[in-house]
Amino acid sequence: MNSPEGSRGMRAVVLRGHGGIDQLEYVTDAPIPIPGHDEILVRVGACGMNNTDVNTRTGWYSQSVTTATGEQTAASDADGSWTGAVSFPRIQGADPVGRIVEVGPSVDPDRLGERVMIDAWLRDPQGDLAAAGYLGSERDGGYAEYVSVPAANAHPIHTNLTDVELAGFPCSYSTAEHMLERAGAGEGDCVLVTGASGGVGSALIQLAGRRGAVTLGISTRAKAAVVGELTGADHILDRDSPSLSSEILDLSGGGVDVLADVVGGPLFPKLFDTIRRGGHYAVAGAIGGPTVDLDLRTLYLRDITMHGCTVLPPRVFANLVRYIENGEIRPLVARSYPLHRLRSAQEAFLRKEHVGAIVIDLRAPSQPGDSEHEARTET
Amino acid sequence: MNSPEGSRGMRAVVLRGHGGIDQLEYVTDAPIPIPGHDEILVRVGACGMNNTDVNTRTGWYSQSVTTATGEQTAASDADGSWTGAVSFPRIQGADPVGRIVEVGPSVDPDRLGERVMIDAWLRDPQGDLAAAGYLGSERDGGYAEYVSVPAANAHPIHTNLTDVELAGFPCSYSTAEHMLERAGAGEGDCVLVTGASGGVGSALIQLAGRRGAVTLGISTRAKAAVVGELTGADHILDRDSPSLSSEILDLSGGGVDVLADVVGGPLFPKLFDTIRRGGHYAVAGAIGGPTVDLDLRTLYLRDITMHGCTVLPPRVFANLVRYIENGEIRPLVARSYPLHRLRSAQEAFLRKEHVGAIVIDLRAPSQPGDSEHEARTET
Repeated sequence: MNSPEGSRGMRAVVLRGHGGIDQLEYVTDAPIPIPGHDEILVRVGACGMNNTDVNTRTGWYSQSVTTATGEQTAASDADGSWTGAVSFPRIQGADPVGRIVEVGPSVDPDRLGERVMIDAWLRDPQGDLAAAGYLGSERDGGYAEYVSVPAANAHPIHTNLTDVELAGFPCSYSTAEHMLERAGAGEGDCVLVTGASGGVGSALIQLAGRRGAVTLGISTRAKAAVVGELTGADHILDRDSPSLSSEILDLSGGGVDVLADVVGGPLFPKLFDTIRRGGHYAVAGAIGGPTVDLDLRTLYLRDITMHGCTVLPPRVFANLVRYIENGEIRPLVARSYPLHRLRSAQEAFLRKEHVGAIVIDLRAPSQPGDSEHEARTET
Repeated sequence: MNSPEGSRGMRAVVLRGHGGIDQLEYVTDAPIPIPGHDEILVRVGACGMNNTDVNTRTGWYSQSVTTATGEQTAASDADGSWTGAVSFPRIQGADPVGRIVEVGPSVDPDRLGERVMIDAWLRDPQGDLAAAGYLGSERDGGYAEYVSVPAANAHPIHTNLTDVELAGFPCSYSTAEHMLERAGAGEGDCVLVTGASGGVGSALIQLAGRRGAVTLGISTRAKAAVVGELTGADHILDRDSPSLSSEILDLSGGGVDVLADVVGGPLFPKLFDTIRRGGHYAVAGAIGGPTVDLDLRTLYLRDITMHGCTVLPPRVFANLVRYIENGEIRPLVARSYPLHRLRSAQEAFLRKEHVGAIVIDLRAPSQPGDSEHEARTET
């Protein structure tokens, strides 16, 4: 048995508290988690980086429930996580990929050695959405040599892709697939995607294309060519174009079937107004600004449906694994970093100059004294 | 056969163009419509009044597609109707109730004499939502002695209720039922209703109660007692209460399942923030102001779905007729007016001091010289 028990500790990056990037600390003596009754322990090969890491670190999620009304609400007892209090220190990382090295007492021992991708949603057994947690937020995640999760969250995967390649998929692609499923995107639909160069955005384009949709991606002019080539979007539009609306209406034949948005912000009214009568809006992020001007007349007079997408049903992740195994979608990794350079990875992530995923490679060698506690920019 | 053919003309109120209430003119010589091939002619007993009359008169709908972006969009070739150009003169009135007095060549003559309620949605035969029209907007409606409609829109009804009582149902109750169906409101749900004293609001409360939901209505303090008594709401809340949010959260046990909104406006952010995780928002009007501040974080982090509700599927109206015939909902008519006093009726409607429907009674006697062309307030 390939158990890590008896080892002194593990390498990990721990988040010390809400705040800046300096709250992230690389350690070599984190306790190795012990899998619970129906849990497994995974030796992590790679772990993808996501906006949720940044949002949890800065406490962004907990602002959502107080800014809208200025009052405390039922959900506002949160302390920086989307659903509840984050306790520190916390190991972040929602997208670990690796192999099962230990199983809890009620898990089939045949699963030992399985290569797995992890569905990060820690669902309430009774199905209460409000009680769901997220890997790397409500429990320790994958920026570490080992991570434990409920066995049901570990999906076996058979593919020739590397761990680094696979680690770009879970959070962003399952989020994107959830959005498209909720919006009912299908063959021949026109799907408009914001933030097309980002993790979820590029996933949306690939996954909408897989469904036979025509894809319009919005990006900056600087990234347009690269994004188009890497994602396979049918059209990439410049978000700063003064004729953006008419370009969208022309390309979509009078209105898009689905607007899949992870940006929000000042562009929202213009893009929302390009949705056709009976169309759909799906949202899973708001990196361009969370509070937007919504014209209720557009919403109701056009019979539009808007879908807020966070907690996904388990079938979405299972479908994603199937698409990967069938080669229907391909990995899009911008760059990988070793664990001890996680701060640099996150700085690169925040600069948004990349297209595709940024991944922490747990197998990449770490050099003693090479930690970023002091040196905060990569050399 | 009870045909009106051969008569000189009919009494009607015609809308001369977009503008103020003086655009509404009472006439006694309007041409009696001739039913088309698959149409019927109804002798109108009564016709309910709705916000859509006002919106079409003022051209409110066509503003929706230009204000959001400042650009022309695919749908913005409208001229004052929600879907296309209104031609004048136009007889308004979406809610006629009466009896079939003539049928087109392809309609079963056994339908002659049938008492009917009219589904105002003039649906495109190919199911194209964008091509749907509305009775009283894209074709002449029920503020007249006779109205012609497609036979499929005339639903037979068997009840002891009067025409005036029935005329309070069609537009507002079918709109409300559509909202509740889209939002999936059911047994034990907590449904929060804005504008509870209005036509759609009071319908929402009755219809949500019929579904076994707990109903919270929002109204003004002045109307609270009357609204509660007439609608049967479980709770009526004062929209101006400084503790409105916490009252809603207390009564709903931490968050409402459905917010059914016809008001929008400045209260929107506060009310939207009381929707529980996984809950629903349905909207069919925005009389308090169409542009609202939407926090996308609340929408997506709580997995909320928002439903814009305008064109309803035919089954919604059929269900409504069934509820009426079964006595599951009761009419709520604030007051009826004779046809020649339609201006006064609309002024009363706009004052919003009533609870329930305002109905034009086509059977009420009109006195020569009693028109309101000059005298614009009722005596």
